[in-house]
Amino acid sequence: MSITAPAGFTAAALTAGIKPSGNPDLALVVNNGPEFHAAAVFTRNRVVASPVKISRESIKDGQIRAVLFNAGNANACNGTQGDKDAQAAVDQVAKLLDVAPTDVGVCSTGLIGEPLPMDKIHAGVEKLVPGLGDHGGDAAEAIMTTDLVKKEVLVKGDGWTLGGMGKGVGMMSPSLATMLVCLTTDASATPEMLDEALRAASRVTFDTLDIDGSTSTNDTVFLLASGASGISPSQEELNAAVLEASEDIARMMQADAEGVTKRVTVTVEGTGSDEQAVNAARTLARDNLFKCAMFGSDPNWGRVLAAVGMADADMDPDHISVYFNGHAVCENTTGTPTAREVDLSGADIDVRVDLGTGGPGRATVRTTDLSHDYVHINSAYSS
Amino acid sequence: MSITAPAGFTAAALTAGIKPSGNPDLALVVNNGPEFHAAAVFTRNRVVASPVKISRESIKDGQIRAVLFNAGNANACNGTQGDKDAQAAVDQVAKLLDVAPTDVGVCSTGLIGEPLPMDKIHAGVEKLVPGLGDHGGDAAEAIMTTDLVKKEVLVKGDGWTLGGMGKGVGMMSPSLATMLVCLTTDASATPEMLDEALRAASRVTFDTLDIDGSTSTNDTVFLLASGASGISPSQEELNAAVLEASEDIARMMQADAEGVTKRVTVTVEGTGSDEQAVNAARTLARDNLFKCAMFGSDPNWGRVLAAVGMADADMDPDHISVYFNGHAVCENTTGTPTAREVDLSGADIDVRVDLGTGGPGRATVRTTDLSHDYVHINSAYSS
Repeated sequence: MSITAPAGFTAAALTAGIKPSGNPDLALVVNNGPEFHAAAVFTRNRVVASPVKISRESIKDGQIRAVLFNAGNANACNGTQGDKDAQAAVDQVAKLLDVAPTDVGVCSTGLIGEPLPMDKIHAGVEKLVPGLGDHGGDAAEAIMTTDLVKKEVLVKGDGWTLGGMGKGVGMMSPSLATMLVCLTTDASATPEMLDEALRAASRVTFDTLDIDGSTSTNDTVFLLASGASGISPSQEELNAAVLEASEDIARMMQADAEGVTKRVTVTVEGTGSDEQAVNAARTLARDNLFKCAMFGSDPNWGRVLAAVGMADADMDPDHISVYFNGHAVCENTTGTPTAREVDLSGADIDVRVDLGTGGPGRATVRTTDLSHDYVHINSAYSS
Repeated sequence: MSITAPAGFTAAALTAGIKPSGNPDLALVVNNGPEFHAAAVFTRNRVVASPVKISRESIKDGQIRAVLFNAGNANACNGTQGDKDAQAAVDQVAKLLDVAPTDVGVCSTGLIGEPLPMDKIHAGVEKLVPGLGDHGGDAAEAIMTTDLVKKEVLVKGDGWTLGGMGKGVGMMSPSLATMLVCLTTDASATPEMLDEALRAASRVTFDTLDIDGSTSTNDTVFLLASGASGISPSQEELNAAVLEASEDIARMMQADAEGVTKRVTVTVEGTGSDEQAVNAARTLARDNLFKCAMFGSDPNWGRVLAAVGMADADMDPDHISVYFNGHAVCENTTGTPTAREVDLSGADIDVRVDLGTGGPGRATVRTTDLSHDYVHINSAYSS
C-alpha cells in the first residue's frame, strides 16, 4: 500500500521543522530505474507556485528520477526568491543523487507567501538521501497538511504494480486541488503512454473533485514509471490501473475534506454534452446554499433548481427532475408529494439532476457539505 | 422614508398566515396616478418563479398600477399550479382595484417548491384593498424573510421624491438576489426613462452585490412612477435619484446579509475591461477560503491570489498587488514585509486588487464573510 511497493522505487521522509507542529514535513521519492519515464499534470491557476514552475520544465522531456515534497509552506507568491529557493533544493537533491537537476521534480503545499526556510530544507535534504528505502508510508505522512488520514493506494497489474500517495483536503477544484499526488509503477511504459493514462484518469477523478470551488497554486500529480518489472502493459491496462488508483485517492480526499460531514456525489444528465453536464454539476457542487442544506440533511431541492438554473448548460426549465438517493423529489420542475420524506441523514448523499432536454450529456462531480468545521478550519489557518 | 412618501402611492400590509412565525407576510402597493409608468428588472436565472413569469409579461407595455408582494413562500417550481395561483392572486387584486390584470405585478419570496396557500392569499387580499393608505413602512416589514431589519429609502428630487423598500439577505448574486425591491416616485417620466434609470442603477448596485454566489428564482426590482408631483426631471436627475436609492438599499442588504460579521468591498483594477474586472471581483467575492479568512480577520492575501488566478480576466501573474484597507500586503505577487500586520478586526474591510496589466478595467463588488451563522441559518431553513 505505498509508492515504494512497485519495484525500482525508494523513498524517505523526516521532520525538517517546516511545520510548526513538529510533524514530518519533507519527503523524497526516487525512481532507481532502469527506466525513468514520467508524466505530470498541474494546476490551471494562472498564479502558480515556484515548485510548479520548475516541475513543469522538468517534465517536458518525459523523464523524472526524483521528486522532493514539502508540506507546511507552499513556496507560492514569494517572487524570484521563491524560484531561487525551489531551484536550490532541486539542485541539492540532484547533486546528492548524482542526476541532472532537470530530472528532479519538486512539490510544495502549505501557506502561501511565506519564504521557504532554506536552512531547514537543506539540512533535511542532506539527511533524506542516506535514509532512502522502502518508506513510502512515511512519505505519504510527510505531505499531509490539514489531512486527518494519510492517503495511499496500490493497484496490481499482470506482473506489475502501481502505487500512489496523495494529500489534499481543501482549496479543491475545478481541475485538481491543493492536491499533491505521486503515482509510481514498475511497468515499462513510454512517457506518451503515461501522459495519456494520467490525463484520462485526472479528467474524471481529480478534475471533478470540487470541495470548495477554490483552486490551488500548487496542484501537481506525478506518475513515475521504473520499468523494473520488465512488463509492458497495454495502454488499456495502464489506463485502467491509473484510473483505479486516481479514483481511490480522489475518494479518500473527498472523505477527508476539511470539515466534511457528508460525501455528496452530484450527477447531471439530460443536457447537450458531457462538458455542459460538468458545468452544471460544478455549479451545483459549489452552491453554498445547497451545501449548507446537505450539512443539515435537508432535502431542499428548490436550492438545486435555483443553482442549476444559473449553469452554462442546455436545459428545459420546465422539465427538470431531481433525485436524492434515488428518490424522486422533483419532476418537471415541481416537487413530488413525498419530496420532504427522503432520508438524508447518512454520510453519503447521491444527487442526480436530469435537465430535461433528452440530450446525451452526463457527468459526475464529487463534493462535500459546508459545515461549521469548514468555516472554523478556514477562518483560523494562517494567523 | 417609505414607498408611500411620494405623492400618488398607497400601500397596505397584514399577516395572511403564510409565514409560520405569524409575522406580516402580504403587502400591496398601488399607484393612484395620474400616470402609471413603470420599469422592472428580473433574475437572470433560467428557472424562474411563477410571479416572475407574470410580472415579466405585465411590464412589457411599461404600465403597472399595483404590485402584490408575499413573503414566506416563493411560489417557485410549483408547475402550472404555481402559475395559476399567481394569476388568481393578480386577478383578485385587479378586480378589487378595478384595473386590468395585465397592469398588476406580483412578487414572492420564501421557500421554493411549496404550494401557495391560496385560501390565505385570497382572504388576505380581500382585506388589503380597503386598508390601503400611507402604510409603506408596514409593506417593507411584510416582505422580510430572514432579514433582521426592514430596508427603506427616500431620495428628494427638485419638487419630486423617490421612495423605496427592499428585502434580501441571502441567495444574492450575480445579478440581483433573493431580492425584492420596489421603488416609487411621483416624478413624471416615460417608461423608457424609467427603464434606462433602473438598468443603469442596477448594473452597479444590485448586480454587483454578491453575498453567496447563489441567484434566486424570484429576484425582481420594480420602479413605479405616478407623475403626481407634476414635475418632469431630466434623465440625469432621474438616473441620479434611482442610483442613490439603489445604492442605499444594496448597502442595507449587504449589512444585513445572512450571518454577516464583515462587510467586504472588493475592487479590482489593472485589467482589460470593466467586465473583466467584475469577473475577477466576483471570483474573489465567491471564494469560500477568502470569505472564511475575512470572518477570521485574517490578512491571508495568498488566498486572494489563488482566487483571482482562476478568474476570466487579463492579468500579469507576476505583477499582482493586493491592498487590505489601503495597506499594501502583496506587491508584484510577493508579500510585503508588513503584510501580516494589517488590522482587519473592524466590521468593514476594503480589498483592492491590481492585476498588473496597466489596463483600464475597474469594478467593485460588495460581499460579506462566510461565518458560522451563515452555515447555521442555511442548514436549518426548510425542515
